[in-house]
Amino acid sequence: MALYGFTRYKERNLAEVKRWRDMYKNVPKSQQKLVEKTIGYTRKLNTVEHLFEDNDRIAADIVRHGLEFYDIPRKELDEFIKDMQKEKKGPDRTSVVQGMKHFVRDWSEEGLFEREDAFKCILDNLAKMDRSEDKPIRVLAPGAGAGRLGYEIDALGGFEVTINEWSMYMNLVHRYAVQIASPNSLSYYPYIDWWSHQATTSDMQRAVHFPDWIPSASRVVMVEGDFTTLFSDSESGSYDVIVSLFFIDTARNLMAYLENIHRLLKPGGTWINLGPLLYGTGPWLQLSLDEIVKVSEALGFEFDVDEAGPDVCGTPTAGEGLDGKVRSLYVPYAQNPKGLSRNAYDAQFWRATKR
Amino acid sequence: MALYGFTRYKERNLAEVKRWRDMYKNVPKSQQKLVEKTIGYTRKLNTVEHLFEDNDRIAADIVRHGLEFYDIPRKELDEFIKDMQKEKKGPDRTSVVQGMKHFVRDWSEEGLFEREDAFKCILDNLAKMDRSEDKPIRVLAPGAGAGRLGYEIDALGGFEVTINEWSMYMNLVHRYAVQIASPNSLSYYPYIDWWSHQATTSDMQRAVHFPDWIPSASRVVMVEGDFTTLFSDSESGSYDVIVSLFFIDTARNLMAYLENIHRLLKPGGTWINLGPLLYGTGPWLQLSLDEIVKVSEALGFEFDVDEAGPDVCGTPTAGEGLDGKVRSLYVPYAQNPKGLSRNAYDAQFWRATKR
Repeated sequence: MALYGFTRYKERNLAEVKRWRDMYKNVPKSQQKLVEKTIGYTRKLNTVEHLFEDNDRIAADIVRHGLEFYDIPRKELDEFIKDMQKEKKGPDRTSVVQGMKHFVRDWSEEGLFEREDAFKCILDNLAKMDRSEDKPIRVLAPGAGAGRLGYEIDALGGFEVTINEWSMYMNLVHRYAVQIASPNSLSYYPYIDWWSHQATTSDMQRAVHFPDWIPSASRVVMVEGDFTTLFSDSESGSYDVIVSLFFIDTARNLMAYLENIHRLLKPGGTWINLGPLLYGTGPWLQLSLDEIVKVSEALGFEFDVDEAGPDVCGTPTAGEGLDGKVRSLYVPYAQNPKGLSRNAYDAQFWRATKR
Repeated sequence: MALYGFTRYKERNLAEVKRWRDMYKNVPKSQQKLVEKTIGYTRKLNTVEHLFEDNDRIAADIVRHGLEFYDIPRKELDEFIKDMQKEKKGPDRTSVVQGMKHFVRDWSEEGLFEREDAFKCILDNLAKMDRSEDKPIRVLAPGAGAGRLGYEIDALGGFEVTINEWSMYMNLVHRYAVQIASPNSLSYYPYIDWWSHQATTSDMQRAVHFPDWIPSASRVVMVEGDFTTLFSDSESGSYDVIVSLFFIDTARNLMAYLENIHRLLKPGGTWINLGPLLYGTGPWLQLSLDEIVKVSEALGFEFDVDEAGPDVCGTPTAGEGLDGKVRSLYVPYAQNPKGLSRNAYDAQFWRATKR
């Protein structure tokens, strides 16, 4: 399904440009004349169309690499696509576009301003832990996205890192990003799909290079699939640390996530969380922060209490019953650094021990 | 249509609570048991249901006042609703909920943190203008929302204020807010409809009182309807100042907005803008900021240039061709001040003169 999506990158995005063109036709001719003379809106549409075609080379290469990596014959994909089309099941434009944006967030210098504060909080917590190369700490990071955090943890040394991601859109982007041989050797145009919040058209049309870093991939173990069903009983109690970054609010059943984090940790193991509480469509239950703390305590977690002032993980979150167990860290998200949106979260940090 | 929406406030929101209940049924019984014991999720659903019923008293009173104000017989509304239902046209939950949120944004102390910086920028610009009670300055503010800005301008003295709003959801909320006799005499629960980004359940369930201010309403002229068609030729060149706050990105045809602002101003008149560029669904053209500047100049506006550092209207916006003509002001939007979202914009400020 995800491969299908990437094969249709060009088709779906050019359809969107066509929609913009059709909209523009509604503008009265006299106004169009001024717009064309002054800023060349049709030229802008043409340029963006070309840039989508350029981006399609990356999308096509993601498909090529994905087929190779997962050892899927091209013919099998073609047949799958034919079946989908028979059933009138279209490819998902949004998941593809969002997946590719993670080249920026996870694998570019431009994404650094979004990830640096979140990563610093988590890496600082891990770096302080006692460990050695012969006695490494076993870390599991579910919700890996395009994978950057896992490789950063690995680079600290003394950790045995497992990462997990459910979305095949993300996994394709991740697998593609980490096999590129030289830094910043590829580029694409990440901002052309959304014309809101643009300071200048040339900013909107700029390319972003990636990857800014070539990790030593070999040691990070990547497991793909559903966090709640993927880890067998034999893995219960086998991790020293679980890091959930921008993860827990993606749950359909949040209780299953929390139980599973508890199950997989060793007794005395540490759960480190940082992320917002932005529930998706159709979650089975939507807990507020104080409820997550209470339920987690009932499951057998003991939260670290720290009422001190600002540190790399933010400041104590205000609210009855939170009592220094949770900190708020301001984290920008899905911003174009040269754009005009200032979308952000107070991401919630805690460290809790499995009793 | 808007009145129809408000009459169905309870029905539509209780349907949403039912959806949440049904979702929760998917959670396995053993997990439900722990959730009930620890935090009482079913009790939370029940409480929120009651609070929606409580909010419905405000919604019903908005309908009562709306019928009275617009002199519409209740029977006429009932018949309209029957027709809508025959055509399977449902009421719009989102517009009603968003409309009522403007009791917070425009008419409560709690909304002050969102409006104060934006209002300060605009009011400071107006307050400096030469005027007297006998020679008042004529100001037009389209996109009035629930109306607060217009009354604040009026309170400066020496202005003849006209405000304009297209949305009848907003107009009903506005008309209702300004007829309340005593400050903070009403309350409602604005945060129960969205369970994301909640620090505590008690914060989510708190009431907000309104209105925090009783304006002297008599002098502000309110015209309802479409900005681009509402003002006749006889009104061309009749305003000294047009203030567009969080307005221009609501256009279907942005060119029509810009032309109309230019047409309605007196020669030498001033256009003051502050707002994001967040285009809605289906805009005919989506311009970046530099394009808006260029097109406006071509229409006959001259932008004030100010490359100085921070002031009440922000700092100069970076970008080729902007050259001190535009400033960026950080403005929070649609946040719950006790919640965990930090949604915000760099709203764009400019002052331009009609040549």
